[in-house]
Amino acid sequence: MPNPFFKCHGPLNISEIIKILQINIEITNIEHKIYDVKDLNTSTEKDITFFHSKKYRDIAKKTKASFCLTTEILKNELPKNCTALVVENVLVSLSKITSLFYPDSINDDFDLSTRDINETQFKDKVIFGKNVLVGNNVSIGNNCKIGHNTIIEKNVIIGNNVSIGSNNIIRNTLIKNNVKILDNCVVGKHGYGFFPIKDKNLRYPHIGIVLIEDNCEIGCAATIDRGSMSNTIIGKNTYLDNQIHIAHNVKIGENTIIAGQVGIAGSSIIGNNVKIGGQAGISGHLKIGNNVEIAGGSGVIKDIPDNLKVMGYPAKNIREFLRENK
Amino acid sequence: MPNPFFKCHGPLNISEIIKILQINIEITNIEHKIYDVKDLNTSTEKDITFFHSKKYRDIAKKTKASFCLTTEILKNELPKNCTALVVENVLVSLSKITSLFYPDSINDDFDLSTRDINETQFKDKVIFGKNVLVGNNVSIGNNCKIGHNTIIEKNVIIGNNVSIGSNNIIRNTLIKNNVKILDNCVVGKHGYGFFPIKDKNLRYPHIGIVLIEDNCEIGCAATIDRGSMSNTIIGKNTYLDNQIHIAHNVKIGENTIIAGQVGIAGSSIIGNNVKIGGQAGISGHLKIGNNVEIAGGSGVIKDIPDNLKVMGYPAKNIREFLRENK
Amino acid sequence: MPNPFFKCHGPLNISEIIKILQINIEITNIEHKIYDVKDLNTSTEKDITFFHSKKYRDIAKKTKASFCLTTEILKNELPKNCTALVVENVLVSLSKITSLFYPDSINDDFDLSTRDINETQFKDKVIFGKNVLVGNNVSIGNNCKIGHNTIIEKNVIIGNNVSIGSNNIIRNTLIKNNVKILDNCVVGKHGYGFFPIKDKNLRYPHIGIVLIEDNCEIGCAATIDRGSMSNTIIGKNTYLDNQIHIAHNVKIGENTIIAGQVGIAGSSIIGNNVKIGGQAGISGHLKIGNNVEIAGGSGVIKDIPDNLKVMGYPAKNIREFLRENK
Repeated sequence: MPNPFFKCHGPLNISEIIKILQINIEITNIEHKIYDVKDLNTSTEKDITFFHSKKYRDIAKKTKASFCLTTEILKNELPKNCTALVVENVLVSLSKITSLFYPDSINDDFDLSTRDINETQFKDKVIFGKNVLVGNNVSIGNNCKIGHNTIIEKNVIIGNNVSIGSNNIIRNTLIKNNVKILDNCVVGKHGYGFFPIKDKNLRYPHIGIVLIEDNCEIGCAATIDRGSMSNTIIGKNTYLDNQIHIAHNVKIGENTIIAGQVGIAGSSIIGNNVKIGGQAGISGHLKIGNNVEIAGGSGVIKDIPDNLKVMGYPAKNIREFLRENK
Repeated sequence: MPNPFFKCHGPLNISEIIKILQINIEITNIEHKIYDVKDLNTSTEKDITFFHSKKYRDIAKKTKASFCLTTEILKNELPKNCTALVVENVLVSLSKITSLFYPDSINDDFDLSTRDINETQFKDKVIFGKNVLVGNNVSIGNNCKIGHNTIIEKNVIIGNNVSIGSNNIIRNTLIKNNVKILDNCVVGKHGYGFFPIKDKNLRYPHIGIVLIEDNCEIGCAATIDRGSMSNTIIGKNTYLDNQIHIAHNVKIGENTIIAGQVGIAGSSIIGNNVKIGGQAGISGHLKIGNNVEIAGGSGVIKDIPDNLKVMGYPAKNIREFLRENK
Repeated sequence: MPNPFFKCHGPLNISEIIKILQINIEITNIEHKIYDVKDLNTSTEKDITFFHSKKYRDIAKKTKASFCLTTEILKNELPKNCTALVVENVLVSLSKITSLFYPDSINDDFDLSTRDINETQFKDKVIFGKNVLVGNNVSIGNNCKIGHNTIIEKNVIIGNNVSIGSNNIIRNTLIKNNVKILDNCVVGKHGYGFFPIKDKNLRYPHIGIVLIEDNCEIGCAATIDRGSMSNTIIGKNTYLDNQIHIAHNVKIGENTIIAGQVGIAGSSIIGNNVKIGGQAGISGHLKIGNNVEIAGGSGVIKDIPDNLKVMGYPAKNIREFLRENK
């Protein structure tokens, strides 16, 4: 799914990019236009890409991008059509370039564009409470409810029969049909993503969104962060209890049940029909299979294959855990 | 305590109930009136009841109900006065019937009945902040304070000398005297109770309330869900720190101290003078005795008798835990 | 740093203090003036102090205070210039006396002094959303943003280039420059500090503040309590993810990274460049050194020296933990 919200501000002159990177390189045509920043695989000759790890060597060799952020060591792997831009830290440089193309994706200040819903086209369409605000680029389907003090900031698409409670803040989010969001949630804020730099960390852009599929229920006081380079997804008919934190880029499958105070760290993928007990935590970049059951309070630090029941910290087969912990 | 909030919409004709259940049964008097849905024990001949597990056999044999939701296997245990309605899943059917009698207990959309407190009888009685909303069927005692943006939705009874902070949402709740509720809490919402059904879960009704006894303090960002068939209770002089989650039907005793980020799962019962350290979790349907101490971060998965100190996951005697984990 | 917010209501006559303590003691000059309550070390002859544990004996011997709350056993350690006021529970008595001198520090009801920001001096200086409230004794620097429904209660000093999101409640807090506070946070509320007393606990005063240093980011739904006798501090360039709870008197160093749902109990001190994984918990009164890494989900119950990586509950050296938990 192409991102429906963040407008690419390309094309930019290559000279502008080089200036931001603070590198010395001679470019013959300083007005060469770069249209977007993409990964090695999807880049065209109009784009700039990045190559920061040996494991992408095979893809790098075939990239069609005209320019590539990379390191001294990796630059020789690139094909002739692609000019290497050697930088000290590829991901930091990527962050800077992405910010150039998508300046709206890095700033998560409150949305000044919001107006009272009474002053918008939704006045006669939506059932709403007191003090409801709606920002630019919002669409709302039929038979929807929005509770008191809820702020629908810019870039939100809401389907039909959606019930949103009170005191919620939602931005950069696509909500399908028959979804319920209870109260006091924050959905679509940027994730906890930055490069640690002494005295002043560097935040990287979040150009992903939050996608909430049909029939989901999101409990009170949830925080669901939008993705950085991909989307955060809550699958169809998945129910979240109260006080749950879903970090950026997490993808949760269908018919999954997640009890209170669970936290799922960035970029982890949860399967279908998964049950996660209260206060369980799942580390980042993991893959949890279908039909997995994770006991409450467990800490999952490695992938779990389909159909397994786990418990403990680190989480292991539940029978083994209970035998060892009588 | 009879529920003060949810009006029973009975009587209903038995034919209406049978239609909802989608079962085939011949009833001589299809206009037979059913007044309420109750458990096996409290039902009268005017009521419908349910019987879903062998362990209630002795009570079932003596029920006075005229009709009973049950299974093919259990139906023969019922007395002659009680007509068995054989269904595939007793609890799912119970949920459907309860929704018929208590339609207001299943919908937790925001409360449209709320008005600005300046337009209510409480204008001159309560000390209140900006943008305070009050719903129908609310009563507030003397010397109470309600902070900015707080929403007292329908069905709330507040005693004397109660201080409620800002940004709270409260419904279906009975608050006694001298209680403090800090900020950003959600109290009285339905619990995380539903039957998992592929593609579209079925929520069951919550006809219980939240009862907060005298002198309690509820910290910031708490979520306290109301009960499903019984009440959620916070006992006298019990103090909750910030970010605590109390699930439906939980009953907490008096003088209990619960530190930050603790979660208590559904239907557990906590005694008096209990101390629970930060981030501890208590599984559902447990009984924690009086004077128990649960160390911070522990995960309790079985009952704990009076006066015990426990630690770890699963929580065990604290001395044993510390000896094993030097 | 002297507390910029809570006004000392001294001097008080010693007779008033004795009356509150409900003790019998003959004082020659019942109009003797007491100006403040301080610790043994910083008291002058104008102040009252407290001495409740043998370990402060050496300091007690040299106190300059005229009066000292203490016990029958400890009273003989005090110098001649200092009159012992023997009480049953020194800390409870201290709490009562501190409440006398700082009555504003114990009441955390919502702030009635707030006005709509449009009616304040900040109207043309700050970029703000709808329904923003500002209390007394607030100052705000240049280039600041305050989101919708946010309540800046009394006693808040905000530096330059500070971005505060929506639905926050802030009081008794000093925010330096370039700080971001996202949404739904409660900052500066009193901590979870009280003396457990059957039927009616006794809250003790919180005369500390929250201090957030330059370049910090505070994630959504944080609760950061102000200090009781000292301040709660978030060091320069420290980033907090969502749903974090920081209890009273906690001091966090610089460049520290704290992932989602972490809880830090009262009075713990965290060093510089520390990394704390999601859902980790740190008990109270601990000292975590510089460059420490605490794995997600860990429970820390003792001090950790500089440069150590820990994991587990109780948290131990990470290599040892992983070896034991394959």
